Amino acid sequence: MRMRIGESLIRVDAHAKVTGQAKFTGDLLPRDCLYAAIVHADCANGRVLSIDGSAAEKVPGFVQLVTSFDVPDTRFPTAGHPWSVEKAHQDIADRPLLTKRVRLYGDYVAAVIGETRLAAKKAAALVKVEYETYPPLLTAREALGATPLHEEFPDNLIAHSRIRLGMSYDEAKASEPEALEFVKRYDTQIVQHCHLEPAQSLAYMEGERIVVVSSTQIPHIIRRIVSQALDMPMGRIRVIKPCIGGGFGNKQDALVEPLAAYLTTRVGGRPVFLELSREETFTDTRVRHPMSFDVKALVRRDGTLLARKVEGWSAQGGYASHGHSVVANSASAIKQLYRDALGLECDVRTVYTTTPVAGAMRAYGIPQADFLTESLSDDIALVLGMDPIEFRMKNKVEAGYVDPHSGITFHSYGLEACIEKGRAAFDWDKKRIAYSNQQGPIRRGVGMAMFIYKTGVHPISLETAGARVTLNQDGSVMVQMGATEIGQGADTVFTQMAAQVLGISPHKVHLVSTQDTDIAPYDSGAYASRQTYVSGGALKRACEMLKEKIIGYAREILGDVALDLRDDGVVEADTGVRKLTLEELALEAQYSLRRSEHLTAEYTNNCKDNTFSSGVGFVEVEVDIPLCKVKVLRILNVHDSGVLINPQLAAAQVHGGMSMGMGYGLSEELLLDQSGRPLNGNLLDYKLPTAMDHPDLETDFVELVDPTGPFGNKALGEPPAIPPAPAIRNAVLHATGVAVDSLPLSPQKLYEHFVRAGLIREGEEHV
Amino acid sequence: MRMRIGESLIRVDAHAKVTGQAKFTGDLLPRDCLYAAIVHADCANGRVLSIDGSAAEKVPGFVQLVTSFDVPDTRFPTAGHPWSVEKAHQDIADRPLLTKRVRLYGDYVAAVIGETRLAAKKAAALVKVEYETYPPLLTAREALGATPLHEEFPDNLIAHSRIRLGMSYDEAKASEPEALEFVKRYDTQIVQHCHLEPAQSLAYMEGERIVVVSSTQIPHIIRRIVSQALDMPMGRIRVIKPCIGGGFGNKQDALVEPLAAYLTTRVGGRPVFLELSREETFTDTRVRHPMSFDVKALVRRDGTLLARKVEGWSAQGGYASHGHSVVANSASAIKQLYRDALGLECDVRTVYTTTPVAGAMRAYGIPQADFLTESLSDDIALVLGMDPIEFRMKNKVEAGYVDPHSGITFHSYGLEACIEKGRAAFDWDKKRIAYSNQQGPIRRGVGMAMFIYKTGVHPISLETAGARVTLNQDGSVMVQMGATEIGQGADTVFTQMAAQVLGISPHKVHLVSTQDTDIAPYDSGAYASRQTYVSGGALKRACEMLKEKIIGYAREILGDVALDLRDDGVVEADTGVRKLTLEELALEAQYSLRRSEHLTAEYTNNCKDNTFSSGVGFVEVEVDIPLCKVKVLRILNVHDSGVLINPQLAAAQVHGGMSMGMGYGLSEELLLDQSGRPLNGNLLDYKLPTAMDHPDLETDFVELVDPTGPFGNKALGEPPAIPPAPAIRNAVLHATGVAVDSLPLSPQKLYEHFVRAGLIREGEEHV
Repeated sequence: MRMRIGESLIRVDAHAKVTGQAKFTGDLLPRDCLYAAIVHADCANGRVLSIDGSAAEKVPGFVQLVTSFDVPDTRFPTAGHPWSVEKAHQDIADRPLLTKRVRLYGDYVAAVIGETRLAAKKAAALVKVEYETYPPLLTAREALGATPLHEEFPDNLIAHSRIRLGMSYDEAKASEPEALEFVKRYDTQIVQHCHLEPAQSLAYMEGERIVVVSSTQIPHIIRRIVSQALDMPMGRIRVIKPCIGGGFGNKQDALVEPLAAYLTTRVGGRPVFLELSREETFTDTRVRHPMSFDVKALVRRDGTLLARKVEGWSAQGGYASHGHSVVANSASAIKQLYRDALGLECDVRTVYTTTPVAGAMRAYGIPQADFLTESLSDDIALVLGMDPIEFRMKNKVEAGYVDPHSGITFHSYGLEACIEKGRAAFDWDKKRIAYSNQQGPIRRGVGMAMFIYKTGVHPISLETAGARVTLNQDGSVMVQMGATEIGQGADTVFTQMAAQVLGISPHKVHLVSTQDTDIAPYDSGAYASRQTYVSGGALKRACEMLKEKIIGYAREILGDVALDLRDDGVVEADTGVRKLTLEELALEAQYSLRRSEHLTAEYTNNCKDNTFSSGVGFVEVEVDIPLCKVKVLRILNVHDSGVLINPQLAAAQVHGGMSMGMGYGLSEELLLDQSGRPLNGNLLDYKLPTAMDHPDLETDFVELVDPTGPFGNKALGEPPAIPPAPAIRNAVLHATGVAVDSLPLSPQKLYEHFVRAGLIREGEEHV
Repeated sequence: MRMRIGESLIRVDAHAKVTGQAKFTGDLLPRDCLYAAIVHADCANGRVLSIDGSAAEKVPGFVQLVTSFDVPDTRFPTAGHPWSVEKAHQDIADRPLLTKRVRLYGDYVAAVIGETRLAAKKAAALVKVEYETYPPLLTAREALGATPLHEEFPDNLIAHSRIRLGMSYDEAKASEPEALEFVKRYDTQIVQHCHLEPAQSLAYMEGERIVVVSSTQIPHIIRRIVSQALDMPMGRIRVIKPCIGGGFGNKQDALVEPLAAYLTTRVGGRPVFLELSREETFTDTRVRHPMSFDVKALVRRDGTLLARKVEGWSAQGGYASHGHSVVANSASAIKQLYRDALGLECDVRTVYTTTPVAGAMRAYGIPQADFLTESLSDDIALVLGMDPIEFRMKNKVEAGYVDPHSGITFHSYGLEACIEKGRAAFDWDKKRIAYSNQQGPIRRGVGMAMFIYKTGVHPISLETAGARVTLNQDGSVMVQMGATEIGQGADTVFTQMAAQVLGISPHKVHLVSTQDTDIAPYDSGAYASRQTYVSGGALKRACEMLKEKIIGYAREILGDVALDLRDDGVVEADTGVRKLTLEELALEAQYSLRRSEHLTAEYTNNCKDNTFSSGVGFVEVEVDIPLCKVKVLRILNVHDSGVLINPQLAAAQVHGGMSMGMGYGLSEELLLDQSGRPLNGNLLDYKLPTAMDHPDLETDFVELVDPTGPFGNKALGEPPAIPPAPAIRNAVLHATGVAVDSLPLSPQKLYEHFVRAGLIREGEEHV
């Protein structure tokens, strides 16, 4: 039998996506559709005094103005987390449909419904809103203790969590008086996901039920959130996820769904389409949390990391969204990636600020933490005169690691092998020496960074996923997953998994890509690099159950012999001789007068395991000191992510992550002015890296069989976004001796650093 | 616990249908949709010599002309029957996508695709087709042995079937020389279903798969037929049935689906919408088989029916569609409704003719047979001087009847009670006397007719139906049926069934009304009055399985106690004390970290039973002899259809059938001219009865508990269409003494009969 796992099957959605047949939310607008536009606050902190729609109402095609003064006073959470029946585990419900209290520039104050998109936008622009304004709160440190944005959080502090392992930092310091101490601050910036397809939802009513067609990673969770937002029973909400053009975590949040769902109730259930522009996407959806870490580290002269004390500050923005769980995840990674011989103290805080709302973004807090840990390692190694790899080898997480709090275990450990692969591929040892004493305006450097990443959210949160598989009359199968394809290739790897278990050709697996919560099995959705692991486990078991049913049915025809499924047929298990094609069996099963049965199987995988992926990023840069420009000459990601279901897609996932990490490291930053107003919330001024900025993206894998993955697989999708930024930062340090402790390494920032380092003089050429 | 079975719940689709939220195929056209129009043959029998599209191509918006010269040469069956793996049981595959051989006026010769509906229609009208024409074959008798329409059927004979019970007719005659002999011919006409929503399909491609959104009663069967028509594996076909505006059997056939599916492949998978006009619906979809019966009957003077010999002729039209199974069903009813003391000979033939294709229509051949049996009974009774009811009481089918061929058993017998109820309600005995010797131009009469109808198609064909039920997080349930709502109220009675078994409120049952063959459980569809019986059985069992799972989950929380579901909650079985609401249980089951499970159940009901419904129609008429006009003063249907799930909907179903039967009896007839061209294929000239033509439609029931129905129920929907026509005919006979032996009893026909009977003179007023 051919193996389907490990085969680089062409994406099952390739044809439809290339030809334009694939239907996205915006392709599904009914002919009687109305359009909504949001009236956004134009201050970052304030209160709405009045809203005047008189000019808006005169726009031809104006249908209705809905303001924060006439929406129901519900508050709902927006984060895409599995629900919990325990109040303490529920996300913070702080979001209104429309708000009178403005908590960020762009907050939702009112909405206009129009007959056309243009009418809605025009009328929205004519709505006059009077505000009372308050000073903006732009950083976590300044917001803590300031006038509260939400009454329930009097200090603006959402949460504070502590990790204490071993000795306290002061005890450690006292016990090792010879140790070197490093005191640093590392800062990360606001970035946005920049998925191709903006947030958008189409909502309409079917009788008393509300249907929301939406570009989301998490249809089943959106169903629950809309139910909360509208205070309607969950069974009366139906969410449909068609094709979606990327999410990267932004669509792991309820963005426009609750408002769209509410608006249709205002027009008798007529369809209402609400689509955000790119500018709105930057300002009013979600961003990656900007974090600031104050770090002290104690290191022996032999390079042994003795203790660290970290104070982390995460700026949440105006609403809680994923809130504290992101920086809590950062803290976990700080703990997990390195061993502190004596002890670790880590305190992280999440604070409401009047900045764009931060939520989930690829790798969920780890890119920020990794910028800390990996910059710190190189800063220490530099002082110690050690090779950065040597320092890491001494202090990194080891095989068999078990997280002392969560119990998550490193079931298959490839980190060291990844480092060695990268070191060899990059000719690291030679280059570290070759680039060690450069002069002149153009200098080269190599840098690297490690990462560790768990697979799914167990045991921190619920992991549950369902799959249903049905035998078609032609011997093909329908696969229904609650898990979502969001561009990452999930449908393709699920197709391979089903083909593998059922012994059929992948083109005989028809996967229902659209999730409709009325009929799709329950699944939390696409996030936390969980789907191949958790949902894949559900699919594997459902296929095994279907296989048992098929063989059971075949036994009734063929008698009590040992049978198996191979090559689209039922075969004798021992000889492999085909006894029936699956089509013959399926036709008989469906149409038999004796025993007609629609052969289907369904399974919920309540996954109670987890495992770590790990890996390393290597970068070689050329720094043009006078131009303050970093050119990435080579970049490599070596990933320990278990068995690869589809090597080509795996590499493509890694490529995307590397590109995202390069933008994070070099150019991307959403800038706010002093009033909190975004300065560059558009794709002209916000600098995404382009194909022109990329060298070949090199990928390699250490392919171990993880014993807990359904096919030996573990987390793949998110982690490659983690190491590029610190690896670039470390390569620049290697090239120039300049340690840049905040992201991104933009020309402006390098200029400031190079001037400070005396490499260039203000207003002059290279010295 | 409240009973949900037997409650007149308001239709679950009432709100959506009244407000226009309900989506029909034509409401679902994508914005990039193309439109198709068919080029119809304008001769009834011939061959296409050439097709010239040069003028058509010049129409602005013309996209493509597809002719019978460039479609693949596949032949497919169109009848909505369950498939069989045995060739002999498969429907005749005689239909091409487009034809060069013309077999009826309006046959599909070519199709035009246009950017707009108008462009397509205009261009289609400009396509020039040259024909070689042959003489039309308008009746079964004349077509038998004529030049074949299909090579595989050299005599145009599709099939001939025989029933032989007891003595031959000649033996019976020889053995009872004193018996009276009746020799008659009864004829029925072509009628059309006249559903509100014409046949229409929207087809498009998703990658290599074809999606057909269609107004059909039988989505799963359409999937198979489109697969045959396009010679594509079934798994690559997806059929979606949204709301549909009536079918009455016409949409138990593949009408435009295969052609629409083919056309989208010609435009790269772009959506193509193909909708028939009302005129096309009359000419080119399906009609009820016109049948002609030659009958001999032998009767003792005491009214004992001794023997019958029937020769039936069914005119099929140009393609086989449901073919011979319709007249075979007629033959069964002839056998089943009466006992022949000595013997029955029945021969029925189905013959290709160049007339509109006949297919399934409400009551599937029985209205024709019943016109024979019930007219014959009154004709005999008149000669014998017996009351028609007395004659029937003596000869009708009795309790415990078992069909000697199919084994179908009259499990619950209410026929006699129905007759007695009608007799009393109509004051029958008095009126038969009161109206016995009328003179003058206006006369009254009462007539009646019995009927018998089986429930579903077992064991003649496969009965299989699936249902899937899912517990929502709010304690409501989703119900997925393969069975289809076509306007008859299926979704409402399924809702009641689920509510009954699960002990929940009907408004907590959310039924997925759209069938999508990718995900809907398999079900043959809406026909043969099978769904409440067969699909209801699947739903009942699936709900019982879900109930077991819910109680099993509850036991893990509450311990090992006897539990039941009542009033939206889990209760102690003994005391009825509520222990958990279903919402609490559902939230726990879905989100439990310990054991998260999406509680669902799915079941296929391979139904291996059947039972008879029966009943009677009573009619009182006033005949205006000079105007040749029949006014129905009263009409009553008394039905033995088991337990009524929803009495109000049951009555509504009966009302619809009665109205349809009145049209069949009095006014409806699709007329063809001598060339085979329809003369009145539109709703102006084809006389459907209107509200103005109806008295109050009176319904009554003999409500027995059928031991084989899932809730004691049996066939309801079709049979009420059977008795009105013969009952009216018999009432006119009673009023006037004139036996009209063909349908309908239109003024034109009555005029001819009244002249022949001497009641009026040609060109004169009443004599």
